[in-house]
Amino acid sequence: MISEAGAITLSGLQAGFEDRLDEVRTTVGRLIAADFSLISDVNAHLLQMQGKLFRPTIVFLVDDATGRKNQRAVNVAAVVELIHLATLVHDDSVDHSVLRRGMPTINSLFSHQVSVIMGDYLYSRAVIELVRLGDLEPLRVLSRVTNEMTIGEMRQLLAHDRLRYTEEEYDLLIRAKTASLISGAAEVGALAAPPALRQAMARFGEYLGMAFQIVDDLLDFTEPATVTGKPSGNDLREHKVTLPLIHALPQMNDMQRTRVQRLMELETPPDDLIEEVVADVAERGGLAYARERAHRFARNAEAELEALPESPARETLRASLTYVLDRRR
Amino acid sequence: MISEAGAITLSGLQAGFEDRLDEVRTTVGRLIAADFSLISDVNAHLLQMQGKLFRPTIVFLVDDATGRKNQRAVNVAAVVELIHLATLVHDDSVDHSVLRRGMPTINSLFSHQVSVIMGDYLYSRAVIELVRLGDLEPLRVLSRVTNEMTIGEMRQLLAHDRLRYTEEEYDLLIRAKTASLISGAAEVGALAAPPALRQAMARFGEYLGMAFQIVDDLLDFTEPATVTGKPSGNDLREHKVTLPLIHALPQMNDMQRTRVQRLMELETPPDDLIEEVVADVAERGGLAYARERAHRFARNAEAELEALPESPARETLRASLTYVLDRRR
Repeated sequence: MISEAGAITLSGLQAGFEDRLDEVRTTVGRLIAADFSLISDVNAHLLQMQGKLFRPTIVFLVDDATGRKNQRAVNVAAVVELIHLATLVHDDSVDHSVLRRGMPTINSLFSHQVSVIMGDYLYSRAVIELVRLGDLEPLRVLSRVTNEMTIGEMRQLLAHDRLRYTEEEYDLLIRAKTASLISGAAEVGALAAPPALRQAMARFGEYLGMAFQIVDDLLDFTEPATVTGKPSGNDLREHKVTLPLIHALPQMNDMQRTRVQRLMELETPPDDLIEEVVADVAERGGLAYARERAHRFARNAEAELEALPESPARETLRASLTYVLDRRR
Repeated sequence: MISEAGAITLSGLQAGFEDRLDEVRTTVGRLIAADFSLISDVNAHLLQMQGKLFRPTIVFLVDDATGRKNQRAVNVAAVVELIHLATLVHDDSVDHSVLRRGMPTINSLFSHQVSVIMGDYLYSRAVIELVRLGDLEPLRVLSRVTNEMTIGEMRQLLAHDRLRYTEEEYDLLIRAKTASLISGAAEVGALAAPPALRQAMARFGEYLGMAFQIVDDLLDFTEPATVTGKPSGNDLREHKVTLPLIHALPQMNDMQRTRVQRLMELETPPDDLIEEVVADVAERGGLAYARERAHRFARNAEAELEALPESPARETLRASLTYVLDRRR
């Protein structure tokens, strides 16, 4: 897990699972295949855009740590990734995003219409595969999770331009938007385990997911554009209010607060204004506070791992927490 | 079933099922309930917009005609209606429609964003309810159908501005877009029946659905705005190519064809041009041809009813064909 520089990398976490992750990639491709040209064109682009399979990795690690009992882990992991893809397609459409992982989004490359339909296409294919597997339990977990994500997306709509957005609302948002699917990934990895362990893994995934999203929101304040594939301060640019700003706002002086107000009022705030607000948020402790909260969630996640018997997979799950906290995207 | 004027009405078809249809309305309301204000607001509007429950009526009639064996028919019928609602919400968003059943659409009243998320919300609630019922069979039918509908929507995107759109492509489009869910409604009504009967009912629903959509497309040429709640010739206005035009085009003279071409090139074609093209399509036999095809599908559907034992419900299913052919929306 430890790279030369001493940092934990995702490919380190995935050591030993490379074959199964390749199978996940193949399975996702098979599940979304269509003999309709427009859909095939979108699929080809989606498969190129495919990420680093963080969620399937969690499915496999939990499956391993709970005794590797799930014969269908590859298919279930592929469905989790497929649901993630469907969500990204609709999210980008809702947010009118132009780039995702440095590549053009479906809505920008094809159209808004194609992306709405395509998200539905992907999600219904995920359900079809779960039905084919003949087990209601993963469906139960993942349909609940998918519904929670839609509520998270609704909350996100209200998190724009709202300077009185609270930390509590932010927590509800990221729990629904991000933590729910990572929790679902951990839970479906533990479906063959006793109920108490299954629940511990669901909670592990939820805490991990909370930390994951807080770090994601932090990186938007700290990473330069070339690394993120999208410009730093992008959430501010889009008037998305996240934890660092929520925490810093009440500590700000009038001048700083006025700056934030101005940024939120401008349809396209200039880069120097964004830079100033980023500096204000840092100065008022917003970044440090968010980092501390991410660490707290990681510690809660780590405590849930105690429910597992000792194993290399358990230690890799522990390392996944460090990866999430330290990653640079 | 026969109204004073001798015509078959939907409420005539629904006679004896009023209580169960009321239960469907209540169940849909319960399934989509949320304690999140924005979703509740959208729900309130959706429930007002709710249609005349044609698809649940088909579920009940087929259930009745096959021995009324499904204890969960109300829940399954409610899920069918919920999937229909979810599809309408996304369709309106994709088409940028402003009105639906004479009321503002979700995308026009709230926003495009809300309608994308809301469709996902409704669909995932439908899946959750089917999982709760604990039976994979309705899920198998309805997830396949939902996926087919997304392919239909993709086909629809390609049915704009395409004067070489063929009747075969049109058939594939309406089969996926409309007939699939009506077929699914008939099939889930027959889940407790022997496989051969279940398949006959699925085919009945498919033929019924084909006739339904052809008549819908015809009505767009024939009904004045006040009855449809949307202006007559609206498909032409939106450059949607349907069966009457597909059939009439090759019969047209140069002048008429040029008029169609001009209509398709104008972003907002004027009303008089639309009227002229409607008249051209009628003169060249497009309406008569489409009507004849709808009747042919209805006859195919009727033939499938022979698989059923004699019963009042079977006669009402037969009457539903006349209703679909004769309706004025």
